[in-house]
Amino acid sequence: MKISQRVERVEYSAIRKLSPIAKRAEEAGKKIYHLNIGAPDIDVPDIYFDTFKNIERGALPYAPSEGIKELREAISKYYKDRNINYAPDEIIITSGASEALLFAVEAVADYNDEIITTDPFYTNYNTVFQQLNVNIETFKTKPETGFAIPDKETIEKAVTDKSVAVLISNPTNPTGAMYSREELERICEVAIENDLFIIADEVYREFIYDGNEFVSFGELPGIEDRLILVDSISKRFAACGARIGSIASKNKEFMAAMDKLTTSRLAVATLEQVAAAKLYEETDEYFKKVNEEYQKRRDTIYEELNKIPGVSVEKPRGAFYIMPTLPVEDSEDFAKWLLESFDVDGETIMVAPANGFFKNPEDGKSMVRLAFILNNDKIKKSMRILKEGLKEYNLRNE
Amino acid sequence: MKISQRVERVEYSAIRKLSPIAKRAEEAGKKIYHLNIGAPDIDVPDIYFDTFKNIERGALPYAPSEGIKELREAISKYYKDRNINYAPDEIIITSGASEALLFAVEAVADYNDEIITTDPFYTNYNTVFQQLNVNIETFKTKPETGFAIPDKETIEKAVTDKSVAVLISNPTNPTGAMYSREELERICEVAIENDLFIIADEVYREFIYDGNEFVSFGELPGIEDRLILVDSISKRFAACGARIGSIASKNKEFMAAMDKLTTSRLAVATLEQVAAAKLYEETDEYFKKVNEEYQKRRDTIYEELNKIPGVSVEKPRGAFYIMPTLPVEDSEDFAKWLLESFDVDGETIMVAPANGFFKNPEDGKSMVRLAFILNNDKIKKSMRILKEGLKEYNLRNE
Repeated sequence: MKISQRVERVEYSAIRKLSPIAKRAEEAGKKIYHLNIGAPDIDVPDIYFDTFKNIERGALPYAPSEGIKELREAISKYYKDRNINYAPDEIIITSGASEALLFAVEAVADYNDEIITTDPFYTNYNTVFQQLNVNIETFKTKPETGFAIPDKETIEKAVTDKSVAVLISNPTNPTGAMYSREELERICEVAIENDLFIIADEVYREFIYDGNEFVSFGELPGIEDRLILVDSISKRFAACGARIGSIASKNKEFMAAMDKLTTSRLAVATLEQVAAAKLYEETDEYFKKVNEEYQKRRDTIYEELNKIPGVSVEKPRGAFYIMPTLPVEDSEDFAKWLLESFDVDGETIMVAPANGFFKNPEDGKSMVRLAFILNNDKIKKSMRILKEGLKEYNLRNE
Repeated sequence: MKISQRVERVEYSAIRKLSPIAKRAEEAGKKIYHLNIGAPDIDVPDIYFDTFKNIERGALPYAPSEGIKELREAISKYYKDRNINYAPDEIIITSGASEALLFAVEAVADYNDEIITTDPFYTNYNTVFQQLNVNIETFKTKPETGFAIPDKETIEKAVTDKSVAVLISNPTNPTGAMYSREELERICEVAIENDLFIIADEVYREFIYDGNEFVSFGELPGIEDRLILVDSISKRFAACGARIGSIASKNKEFMAAMDKLTTSRLAVATLEQVAAAKLYEETDEYFKKVNEEYQKRRDTIYEELNKIPGVSVEKPRGAFYIMPTLPVEDSEDFAKWLLESFDVDGETIMVAPANGFFKNPEDGKSMVRLAFILNNDKIKKSMRILKEGLKEYNLRNE
């Protein structure tokens, strides 16, 4: 008896691999500010809980494999209001964006096929790709350009005859970049010329700062047949624990493949779908209010990071992540030390070492990803802990 | 752009492949009794809905990837009360037994490895195996023996050097068989002698008839390290739509693999886990009451089937499926015809053709799987429709 190679190959998520250490620290009484994971601390809108409270008793059959009609209609309307045109039957419901991504990659990539993405990229792409035996090829995005999409030639260097899709997170986890229409069009050109699917992960679409306009791949003409739009309510409505995501596509062969994969796992939780449909009744007011709160948090963390000697950082344009370079050689060692050996009045912070977000872990060795999902006071406290921590860690290592 | 071979290979579930035809019939105003799918019509216990009504508003972070502690403790206690010893940290929560099965197979089988199971077997095993490129090998169980486990020699003929596990559903979907201690021990011997994992799918464990005693693989000594126990609340508490399953294992390498796979999809829906933990507070009274209801249904469907000329059928000992042989040559054609071209006063039935439950579809060509998940009146009506349908279908074909 042995464990399969496909699972042996899977690495631990960079976001969670320090969790056992954090757990021990918490059990020993330390208070930890979790900047390592993108789980918003704000309340889910009341309508979510109201739906559960008002649900009728009775039988609870499987939901349709493709998801309940009300939710697919709600997402269709949400898209329509944003110039993105998907009919309800071009949308399926998944267990979070995680399952959406797994299904998308499973349907377009065979063993040893390649998918192209930015470098750095969302670390959990790795765990999905590794279990499916799909390889990841990347093109570099650089901190000094705000992690912008590079020129076409650079993107194309990542394309090989094994490439089947390009996967783009926008606004971007982990860098906080948000791509312009021109940057997206560059991706589209490469996809069209090399006959690739485009998998667009737009779960952070409502988190856009400084009044910038967000452009979705779903608005761009000429790629309708190759676009696979991955989405989720986890960040949009602060409902990570609901596990409701979706895939939209106009490609009939792809949707037939989705039919097989969704049927194979029967259904997504019924009541969560009912409540998610209700969440989509929230108006633009809600998004505006949430956005203002996150912009404040972004401003705070950016200002506070700038006050720390030796830290260099770009201001994120979207999502709720920031990826500073710290004055340390090995941010994973530093992150562990913060949990195990450091505190300010019994409190410390948990950060995600950035090495796991890069194809070559060395490239992210001095960086960390911070999620600004805590309120301003906690962000300020956390940055004070980071500042003190860096001082003591570097003194200790001199 | 093309769809991956791994998904092209996946066949449609035998349980749902007639769904588009059924949908059209329903849209045209026909009433359909769904005997094709094991979704119980009885109410979920009140405590499930009460939990949702009492849930506190606020933030909704990801649950721990392995599942919330309260639910893992509740399942551990449930097992302990039944002489099965798993600590909470030897249990993980999954999105239904479907995800549990996917994770189990993914962790023990590489591409082209083989898993051994009974023939017939639960059709959705196929869809899981096909997408993972794992092959299924079977040993026959026969209607005339009540689909009992055959002798050791017959089982061993299915073992090859590519075999990694034996997968057993008990009580059995689709046949309604329930295996004795001796039958299970025969499986254990083969597993030990050939160094195979045992994947035990015991989601129907509470559906046992005629006062028989159910024996779990979890009670048998000598296989602790190789046993992977798959479970679910879908049937136990009539909560299919909750999508809460679990895996229990004492094998540390296997549980480390589960840690990777559960982390990769982040979490299972939080509130559903909270409510599922509450469901486990139900007492034996609940199981007794449900069991009596299903025994009545089983007796009714068995009696009614026996009244239909040309039908041969064994009495199921467990689960809520019965697998009669009908006097038709092609039960899939008959099932389609029932939906498309037949009704009694505007009503018809949907059945699962049994061909999809067999390794060689020809073996099940005259059989159907019926789920006795409707109340007695509806079962009687359904069997009347089946009787009339068979008469008319066979007259038409003469």
